[in-house]
Amino acid sequence: MIENDLKIYKKKTIKSSNLFKKSKKLHVNGVHHNIRFFEPYPFVTKSSKGKFLTDVDSNKYVDYWMGHWSLILGHSPKNIVNDAKKQINNGWMHGTVSKNSIELSEKISKAVPVAEKIRYVTTGTEATMYAIRLARTATKRKTIAKIDGGWHGYTTDLLKTVNWPFHNSESSGLVGEKYVKSLPYNNLHDSIKILKAVKNDLAAVIIEPVLGGGGGIPATKDYLIGIEEFCHRNGSLLILDEIVTGFRFRYGCMYETMKLDPDIVTLGKIVGGGLPIGVITGKNELMNYANTSTFSKTNRAYIGGGTFSANPLTMITGNSTLSTLKNRGTKLYKKLNGFGSETRKMLDKKFGGEVITTGIGSLFLTHFVTNGNTEIKNANDVAKCNIKKLYDYHFHMIANDNIFFLPGKLGAFSDVHTKSDITNIAKSTDRFLTKFKK
Amino acid sequence: MIENDLKIYKKKTIKSSNLFKKSKKLHVNGVHHNIRFFEPYPFVTKSSKGKFLTDVDSNKYVDYWMGHWSLILGHSPKNIVNDAKKQINNGWMHGTVSKNSIELSEKISKAVPVAEKIRYVTTGTEATMYAIRLARTATKRKTIAKIDGGWHGYTTDLLKTVNWPFHNSESSGLVGEKYVKSLPYNNLHDSIKILKAVKNDLAAVIIEPVLGGGGGIPATKDYLIGIEEFCHRNGSLLILDEIVTGFRFRYGCMYETMKLDPDIVTLGKIVGGGLPIGVITGKNELMNYANTSTFSKTNRAYIGGGTFSANPLTMITGNSTLSTLKNRGTKLYKKLNGFGSETRKMLDKKFGGEVITTGIGSLFLTHFVTNGNTEIKNANDVAKCNIKKLYDYHFHMIANDNIFFLPGKLGAFSDVHTKSDITNIAKSTDRFLTKFKK
Repeated sequence: MIENDLKIYKKKTIKSSNLFKKSKKLHVNGVHHNIRFFEPYPFVTKSSKGKFLTDVDSNKYVDYWMGHWSLILGHSPKNIVNDAKKQINNGWMHGTVSKNSIELSEKISKAVPVAEKIRYVTTGTEATMYAIRLARTATKRKTIAKIDGGWHGYTTDLLKTVNWPFHNSESSGLVGEKYVKSLPYNNLHDSIKILKAVKNDLAAVIIEPVLGGGGGIPATKDYLIGIEEFCHRNGSLLILDEIVTGFRFRYGCMYETMKLDPDIVTLGKIVGGGLPIGVITGKNELMNYANTSTFSKTNRAYIGGGTFSANPLTMITGNSTLSTLKNRGTKLYKKLNGFGSETRKMLDKKFGGEVITTGIGSLFLTHFVTNGNTEIKNANDVAKCNIKKLYDYHFHMIANDNIFFLPGKLGAFSDVHTKSDITNIAKSTDRFLTKFKK
Repeated sequence: MIENDLKIYKKKTIKSSNLFKKSKKLHVNGVHHNIRFFEPYPFVTKSSKGKFLTDVDSNKYVDYWMGHWSLILGHSPKNIVNDAKKQINNGWMHGTVSKNSIELSEKISKAVPVAEKIRYVTTGTEATMYAIRLARTATKRKTIAKIDGGWHGYTTDLLKTVNWPFHNSESSGLVGEKYVKSLPYNNLHDSIKILKAVKNDLAAVIIEPVLGGGGGIPATKDYLIGIEEFCHRNGSLLILDEIVTGFRFRYGCMYETMKLDPDIVTLGKIVGGGLPIGVITGKNELMNYANTSTFSKTNRAYIGGGTFSANPLTMITGNSTLSTLKNRGTKLYKKLNGFGSETRKMLDKKFGGEVITTGIGSLFLTHFVTNGNTEIKNANDVAKCNIKKLYDYHFHMIANDNIFFLPGKLGAFSDVHTKSDITNIAKSTDRFLTKFKK
């Protein structure tokens, strides 16, 4: 960490420093999500509005983390605020079948052809857990293949090969890890070899079409098509985890742009407008395994639910977000995707080979390459980068210029960002580069 | 189902009937939580306020389901509405460390002594999953014991022996079921026998001090103390799942009233004020296994988080709920517990031996006993009851008197109920009894 940046940050975040001390007394490592911690301590947020996060010391940061990438319209957009407040009056927890869920599903099912049936749960972690359970039930097989560095939440069923070194277990206290196999992203030849070795027990392959937590790396079309072909020939399911990518680049999912035919798709983040949601969607015949009216206790895929599933408030913020996205049409996505592409080019140019900026559409992340690496095609390549320098870079922007990327993580443009924000990233990057040249 | 009640219900829920048809096209079995379905179709809720759920046909039901028992102050209480709306302006998703979580934790840690450290997740299902992971990590053992009929959410780690017949698997597609053992509730002798057989690998026992989904049955103090003694002698953890019972009967947890010393306690529902929450709390040394700054990848208990953990809106509705409960003091709990006790007595008397009303405090459920059964001490006893008649009874109240219990499930009094509501339950029960006497 650059000494001077640390000094600047500490000076402007005195209240945060004290509050975070309190937070550490109350909470494990002071946080409720491991990645929200960064050195020396994360600032403590007081409020958020538009493109800004405001901390307890009243610093206003331009936010590119945007609620784990769930806020494509920025913080508290006016029409969603209005709809949410109306819903607050009308109850945020009905605990029964709620009109709002039907309205949201009508939108999703029109925009996502595979969503012949939808079930809402409360988190992405739950959605992927249930997707796996469905696949195992439908195929009567157990093995699931995922990607090295692929992230599908904290579920016991998928907590493997997430962080480097991938061959080390992610956690103590897991069971069933042996049923999870891991594939090298974007390497079809080696992936198929691994799949072939477990083909008789292969229930499903689950893939993010853009590796999100793993570094913002898009899958190649050939890779996804190759995996899909293998799955479908083999009677295995293809599960696409579009929790990050769904409604991020277009009004709908990413898979359609590649003419893929997944069996199950998980959604989350954007479709909930920033409130808790997880969505399992898929083809009728598969989703029907969750139907407790049709299947016996032992033959069904027992799917929640949970107390908060399809709560009317999330349904409204989701619905309101999708309405806005739909109304704004391709124009909004064109703008956001354009910002991303411009920024990736700008950063690659500024760093002159020192970084490779990955991402697609409105998502972008700078990787500080080492040892003459010239491409970032999977999470292994990411792991070889200089992660400390990436943290320094992000921290530099936080400390000096109130530009907030969650250190080390993908940034996302939202509707509230403007061209001048890109200019400000450029300027801050220049100052960072000057610092290192000294 | 009673023919006439069905006719009445269908007549008054025409819009619900049509909307639910739409819901079935979009959603598996039309619902997002299996238990929310009931025959012939569940009404579709438009809004909720105070003690009422209002459906799309404008029927107003007095609600005893109260958001899966999470709304101890009723739907949309004024001060929580105000706080929630303020928070809506200030952002519902910061994605960073948020002031609000510190404020809620200060309250919880004062009221729940075992909560030396707290981590918020988004659902109860996640909280119990992480509790199990912590226990397995801390003990380096794998086996978990739970109760026959005990309900700890849909997690892969605990989805066993939930529904009758207990020996049948709850779902296809599970892994690791062999590490879950099940105990007969309130039968210490047989439970200890089972625990002894697995004692070398016993990581933890997880228990709800009142079987919630399993039928509203309190554990006896002797049972809990006996299990705790065994656990602590054996180096196993006692996990109390107080998601239903926490802050339900008093300002704090139930375990304290029995002088128990659990290692980990899970909370949810009430402490989130009806918005998505799950809480893992416990002793410092145990919770610390989740500290990724201290433990290596392989030795830690990897705990979320998740995108929505500690979201500032849930933190506020939780905080506002606890503030109100704290301010209202023992008086509120005395009232609610009194309502419950009065209602249990009233129902037992009216049914004259045909039902046993279980529950404690503000929770109550009528079980229609068969074969001369004279007590309900566990979920086996519940399974032997006439469940069809319980459904008929609850449906009778929905159809004729706009009194809503989720059919078959425990009812809960909240602050918005009054004495006259008990009278109305009594009257509706009388009419139900008359119908059957004809």
